[in-house]
Amino acid sequence: MRPIYLDFNATTPLAPQVLEAMLPYLREHFGNPSSGHVYGQAAKEGVERARGQVAGLLGCELDEVVFTGGGTESDNLALFGVLEATGIRRLVISAVEHPAVEQPCRVLERRGMGVVRVGVDGRGVVDPQAVARALSGGARALVSVMHANNETGALQPIREIARVVHGHGGLLHTDAAQSVGKVATLVEELAVDLLSVAGHKLYAPKGVGALYVRRGTPVVAFARGAGHERGLRPGTENVASIVGLGAAAELARRDPPTHQLAALARRLLDGLREAIPGLVLNGPEADRLPNTVNVSVPGKLGRAWLAAAPEIAASTGSACHDGKDEPSAVLTAMGLSRERALGAIRLTVGRSTTEAEIALAVAALARAALSC
Amino acid sequence: MRPIYLDFNATTPLAPQVLEAMLPYLREHFGNPSSGHVYGQAAKEGVERARGQVAGLLGCELDEVVFTGGGTESDNLALFGVLEATGIRRLVISAVEHPAVEQPCRVLERRGMGVVRVGVDGRGVVDPQAVARALSGGARALVSVMHANNETGALQPIREIARVVHGHGGLLHTDAAQSVGKVATLVEELAVDLLSVAGHKLYAPKGVGALYVRRGTPVVAFARGAGHERGLRPGTENVASIVGLGAAAELARRDPPTHQLAALARRLLDGLREAIPGLVLNGPEADRLPNTVNVSVPGKLGRAWLAAAPEIAASTGSACHDGKDEPSAVLTAMGLSRERALGAIRLTVGRSTTEAEIALAVAALARAALSC
Repeated sequence: MRPIYLDFNATTPLAPQVLEAMLPYLREHFGNPSSGHVYGQAAKEGVERARGQVAGLLGCELDEVVFTGGGTESDNLALFGVLEATGIRRLVISAVEHPAVEQPCRVLERRGMGVVRVGVDGRGVVDPQAVARALSGGARALVSVMHANNETGALQPIREIARVVHGHGGLLHTDAAQSVGKVATLVEELAVDLLSVAGHKLYAPKGVGALYVRRGTPVVAFARGAGHERGLRPGTENVASIVGLGAAAELARRDPPTHQLAALARRLLDGLREAIPGLVLNGPEADRLPNTVNVSVPGKLGRAWLAAAPEIAASTGSACHDGKDEPSAVLTAMGLSRERALGAIRLTVGRSTTEAEIALAVAALARAALSC
Repeated sequence: MRPIYLDFNATTPLAPQVLEAMLPYLREHFGNPSSGHVYGQAAKEGVERARGQVAGLLGCELDEVVFTGGGTESDNLALFGVLEATGIRRLVISAVEHPAVEQPCRVLERRGMGVVRVGVDGRGVVDPQAVARALSGGARALVSVMHANNETGALQPIREIARVVHGHGGLLHTDAAQSVGKVATLVEELAVDLLSVAGHKLYAPKGVGALYVRRGTPVVAFARGAGHERGLRPGTENVASIVGLGAAAELARRDPPTHQLAALARRLLDGLREAIPGLVLNGPEADRLPNTVNVSVPGKLGRAWLAAAPEIAASTGSACHDGKDEPSAVLTAMGLSRERALGAIRLTVGRSTTEAEIALAVAALARAALSC
């Protein structure tokens, strides 16, 4: 038997209806959407239906959705594409961004771009007034603040940040890889100009994503080639995976898992608090992704703790950084001690998580906390 | 009944064994390869097995294969990545490159990079001596010449070009999107430094590709993010599609379709020549992809000709440019008249093409040529 999967922020399995929607496009509807014949038409129809489904989830127009090869590519397109199109030379990001935003900014810094990193409070939350201070007096800026943090689940006050950014004439991008499909991500409510979606975080496949680009936002392609996606993303469309992303968006819109995930995560956190004296939550108590529980026990090493609980599969940091025994940059930016940061484990539940799994996980982690 | 598919250069269906190999990774093996637990391990094993399969087809080392999101991305990584890593300021390409190479070069030209385009002869073939002339006396250059042309199937003398390029201290990239899986593409024989692979041209899925990077070739990532693929390609690995690419590479190595395709294409071309007076082949008679037949009939418009033969699904230009009634840039670069270029149709056969389909296609095209 495989361990209980509590690592849905690292990646999700395909929802059954997602795979079902994809299979015809991995079999008979194999055409190239650029081809004029019926094979191409069938593929094109699949892509366009998916565009409607993603637009439906985000509450945007069809021509505001650009399909990409994943969340990282969406972030790169948003940052490099807007800077090149606008000539903006100033970036403001948060101190807890995913490497898909942080690393492009480091490259841009080396090229002479001004990059300001706005810190977070002890809960991992950005203060919109800190963004305002970063923007005041300077030239027009592109701001990128993630919607939800992948490690702590902290939800950022994007709507308030948008008000600040737009008040200063800037543009706002948000990496919503972790929030899309878990909480509402209507672009009008968030008031963002660009928003990144990663398929494999919402029960669609790996290797596909989308970028919402508000009409009128200047952006040029990042990669160059033939003129797919209205010239913004070259390369033959990944039809089957785009169809899968569409089906996942439709599922998230029709059957949002927010309450189900929140109930499971609440049960998990309550159970751990009851069973393990001294356990602390890393991240905000409220304003958190409904599925994310990042906890430490003083004196325990997260890696050892998880190793002592082989019944569950979870993460000590974000999956991308596994294999390194450095304290998480996100937890460090929150001002947590090195000890607490190294003690952190991230437990993230998903649509297929059951109450029985939660009970088993609590028992396993409580036992492990005593033995490690 | 759907028309006979003769557009395998636009895209291929998945080989049955490719889909079979992928399905476990679209179902139970859904983990993130960066995760340390068993879900991640299973995914990572799939990726690494595929790397071995691709390396096996190309005859290279495991650490010379970088998985990407497709052929266009591979080309962008090769061009932008080598230029940034080396500081080379000079590009030499052929006049018949795919937009995935031509368009990045246009961007680089606008940024002040010197780009020389080497012409082709009437068959669409680059003369290595023309490359030598373009290189003589100048600074070190990055050269990019496609292995096989997508429209005519013309195979370029890559090995001879490599000798010239290396003699001038340069680096050679080849876009082998159309040749991999159809003819031998052993990197030692081709003697290239970088080679692009596109999954969906060799019976693997869309949205996945690879870049061969010879050990010691300086290259940096194009997109930026977490450190996947030894820092060269960020973003969670597209595990299922990478596994599919591996299975397709294995199929191409164990059961190369070269002779089968050549026999079918020969029968197609002979049949058309016999049935349609005045029909001309666009591209070389020999030194051509075994599956590609690009033909014109003086006085006929390719689009009208295909429209009069609804029994078959083929292309008038490369699929990427469909919808535009401009003569193909490739055929124009070969010096063909506007009339002949606008008259061209591209018929490309594949593994699943049958002799009966060829016979039907010849009859349909012959009848259509009389009526259009």
